[in-house]
Amino acid sequence: MNSQVRRVIGIDHGVQRTGWGIVYPEGGQFKAQAFGAIETDSQAPFDQRLKQIYDALTKVIAQYQPQEMAVEEAIYAQNVKTALLMGQARGTVLLAGANAGLPIFAYTPKKIKSATVGNGAASKEQVQFMVRRILNLTDEVLIQHGVRVLGLDVSDALAVAICHLQQARPER
Amino acid sequence: MNSQVRRVIGIDHGVQRTGWGIVYPEGGQFKAQAFGAIETDSQAPFDQRLKQIYDALTKVIAQYQPQEMAVEEAIYAQNVKTALLMGQARGTVLLAGANAGLPIFAYTPKKIKSATVGNGAASKEQVQFMVRRILNLTDEVLIQHGVRVLGLDVSDALAVAICHLQQARPER
Repeated sequence: MNSQVRRVIGIDHGVQRTGWGIVYPEGGQFKAQAFGAIETDSQAPFDQRLKQIYDALTKVIAQYQPQEMAVEEAIYAQNVKTALLMGQARGTVLLAGANAGLPIFAYTPKKIKSATVGNGAASKEQVQFMVRRILNLTDEVLIQHGVRVLGLDVSDALAVAICHLQQARPER
Repeated sequence: MNSQVRRVIGIDHGVQRTGWGIVYPEGGQFKAQAFGAIETDSQAPFDQRLKQIYDALTKVIAQYQPQEMAVEEAIYAQNVKTALLMGQARGTVLLAGANAGLPIFAYTPKKIKSATVGNGAASKEQVQFMVRRILNLTDEVLIQHGVRVLGLDVSDALAVAICHLQQARPER
């Protein structure tokens, strides 16, 4: 991997599962460098679950060296309880990015869906379908990455990265 | 300060201001070792504000070496927007504690108010009044700590620490 290539890590944050995916541009297309999901131990104390997300994400960033991070804007949650949980997971992700020195960009779910599906009200399944097409993630490619089933949190994370790369494409 | 003394850092988290206070037991009473508030730069990017809280709190923990952390439980917020902000600040605080290896304990606001004022519906001003009495924080003592006016977030933080120390007093 050429270290000059602009690599973006997209994140779909959640206390239970946090999807991540690193996307870079190549020859007018977008490609996935690596992707996966961080699962936390639901039996662990809450602060340790946040630490599991933080530690795993810090490791991913150290391994793949993305230069920028893209996340969802925190504007919506079903209710206060969900919002408090979501906020804590999001704070953890932002901190992992900030402590690794990455600039962080946030996009609304509507913008992310528009960027990938062309429809701001698209379902997660539609987002996944288009993310797989955009990144050419065929079943064979998934297997090469050690993935049998692509989680919706992982495709959402890849979608955020794609959305960010589409906003301001540098010369290449 | 005897390093065997059980020191608890209490936190009142907020994106704008995070109060903190370290309390320890001595001769059947509680005493304040140190306290203060971390203010973030409202002009900074959001992730940098979280990093300011994280870095400042990490420094406080390294300086005063508390052995335990006590925080408010995340069960209530006025609305989803507030909950998302509060959650991110809380996640940051938990992570600073967890990354410093501190066990973390959470108490409801009602329990914290009962522990200090004896009334679960007490106001922040009442909590402050009692915290000052419990810790003997006279105007003179405040000045010794370099504090002229005790913020309500700082007295709330001290109250969380007092509440935790009251739950299970070890032999001393």
